[in-house]
Amino acid sequence: MTIKDIASILKQNDNFEILTHNYPDGDCLGSGYALCMALRQLGKNANVITTDKPKSFGYITEKVDEQSFEPEYIVSVDVANEKLLGINEEKYRGRINLCIDHHGSNAVCADYCYVDPNAAAAGEIIYDLLAELEVKITVAIANCLYTAVSTDTGCFRYINTTPRTLRIAADLLDLGCDSDYINKVMFDTKSKRRIELERDILDNMIFCADDKCAMIYTTCQMVEGMGDDETEGIASIPRQIEGVKLGITIREKPDGEYKVSARTSGDIDASAFCARFGGGGHPGAAGCTIKGTLEDTIAMLKKAAEETL
Amino acid sequence: MTIKDIASILKQNDNFEILTHNYPDGDCLGSGYALCMALRQLGKNANVITTDKPKSFGYITEKVDEQSFEPEYIVSVDVANEKLLGINEEKYRGRINLCIDHHGSNAVCADYCYVDPNAAAAGEIIYDLLAELEVKITVAIANCLYTAVSTDTGCFRYINTTPRTLRIAADLLDLGCDSDYINKVMFDTKSKRRIELERDILDNMIFCADDKCAMIYTTCQMVEGMGDDETEGIASIPRQIEGVKLGITIREKPDGEYKVSARTSGDIDASAFCARFGGGGHPGAAGCTIKGTLEDTIAMLKKAAEETL
Repeated sequence: MTIKDIASILKQNDNFEILTHNYPDGDCLGSGYALCMALRQLGKNANVITTDKPKSFGYITEKVDEQSFEPEYIVSVDVANEKLLGINEEKYRGRINLCIDHHGSNAVCADYCYVDPNAAAAGEIIYDLLAELEVKITVAIANCLYTAVSTDTGCFRYINTTPRTLRIAADLLDLGCDSDYINKVMFDTKSKRRIELERDILDNMIFCADDKCAMIYTTCQMVEGMGDDETEGIASIPRQIEGVKLGITIREKPDGEYKVSARTSGDIDASAFCARFGGGGHPGAAGCTIKGTLEDTIAMLKKAAEETL
Repeated sequence: MTIKDIASILKQNDNFEILTHNYPDGDCLGSGYALCMALRQLGKNANVITTDKPKSFGYITEKVDEQSFEPEYIVSVDVANEKLLGINEEKYRGRINLCIDHHGSNAVCADYCYVDPNAAAAGEIIYDLLAELEVKITVAIANCLYTAVSTDTGCFRYINTTPRTLRIAADLLDLGCDSDYINKVMFDTKSKRRIELERDILDNMIFCADDKCAMIYTTCQMVEGMGDDETEGIASIPRQIEGVKLGITIREKPDGEYKVSARTSGDIDASAFCARFGGGGHPGAAGCTIKGTLEDTIAMLKKAAEETL
């Protein structure tokens, strides 16, 4: 399948529903709403289906009113797996006509699948698709696509950023996207609650193995009432400390278990570390679950870290 | 003056000293070392003169050995003012032949000045210059220039980022620069001391005026032994909190005075706020100095904040 093929499929159909994944992020919302606006420009009916519309993405989601029509063609964007449709899974499983995604692990069952794992964001694919569809990239569409490519790359900082990503972002700036506003909201704004959580995390940070291991934890009480977007990225706190080879994040779950994630650098194998506790993952990032008290969990992880490092 | 003119001047001369500013950052070091390597490629002698070589920039500064020659032609890069030469000011003031810079406020006295305030970084100018000089952009040069453009834009996040910046970065990735390493070191690494400072700052953070004002402070004891690179950017902590219109950072100076910086958003005038204490600045960022105890300083600022907001 090529971008040309998807464009041709979209041109031949109408009355679209565009599915995004649960805990929606900048890429699925930006890609979904950009595609929705593009299809409407072509005279088609289209709606975006989301499990949630986080307030911070209001500048995207509030620009598009819902249309009333009988859905005929279902497209998913940035959805790697039907399970990720969340509350919409039951309704749409097995009914997706076209799947557009950038996850190499994509396992969606659809009539047509276009997966480009070299794209840093689904937004890159949508950008190429809109060119093929000869849609005018309005400021509103440019804002959606800039959000998609910038958020999935940590503002062009992550390893998935490619020359193509940067050139698409340059084009979107040329087309008038409000990158200043988007960068401020996405990368330079924290809630007071998030700042307080970071304070509590730093207050309780544990160093061991000659400071080569840093460990943080959150209890249910510490994150009470916080959305996933507010607690996102805390696992990067221990990992980014100079000299730390093993960064551990412990999260208390409501069932009393502790979800542990390990991030390593250099030749330390995170997967082997977590395998000690029945978990697994990749050499650089892995996870496991530990039952017990917080004190015992920390003590066990400390001992394992001292032995590993 | 055009880029062509600078290229022609450089071709006609030899035995270069390239000056950078004090507290050297990614832009002056990246631009300076890129130019140095380019001139050597053309068969010229060239050295970079710095007041300091911060460890984190070792991947730039350690790639270039010092040459031994009698200096004939002095070029400054990213230096807005001779005062910023620091300990080198006395030796070089009035002796600069060519000044290359991107600060609109540039006030360097030189035989030739090329200032492009539309360039997000001096590195953008050097990139164009190297093309004009028909120099091969090696991986080492690409690393220098990527460091220059990425650091001066907060990894393409700040308001000075332009389509040109992003396209230059894309070209540098194509040329093989190690953006993963550079992004990790520049934007994703904090010293343990820095993390501890952030913890102490968050522990003592003060909110007032219905959370529309957030205030942080550092005492001499809190930052003892820390370099400027380690304390950089703390003023962004209060400013980035959602709902905060006035972010205040108070720094104790060794003479017992308190240096206050105010950052505002919306229609709050930082300059007017600081003018209450004999200071000034811009509408969005301003500063002042207050004498007294920390407690009195905080109380005065709190009162002023409540009255302003």
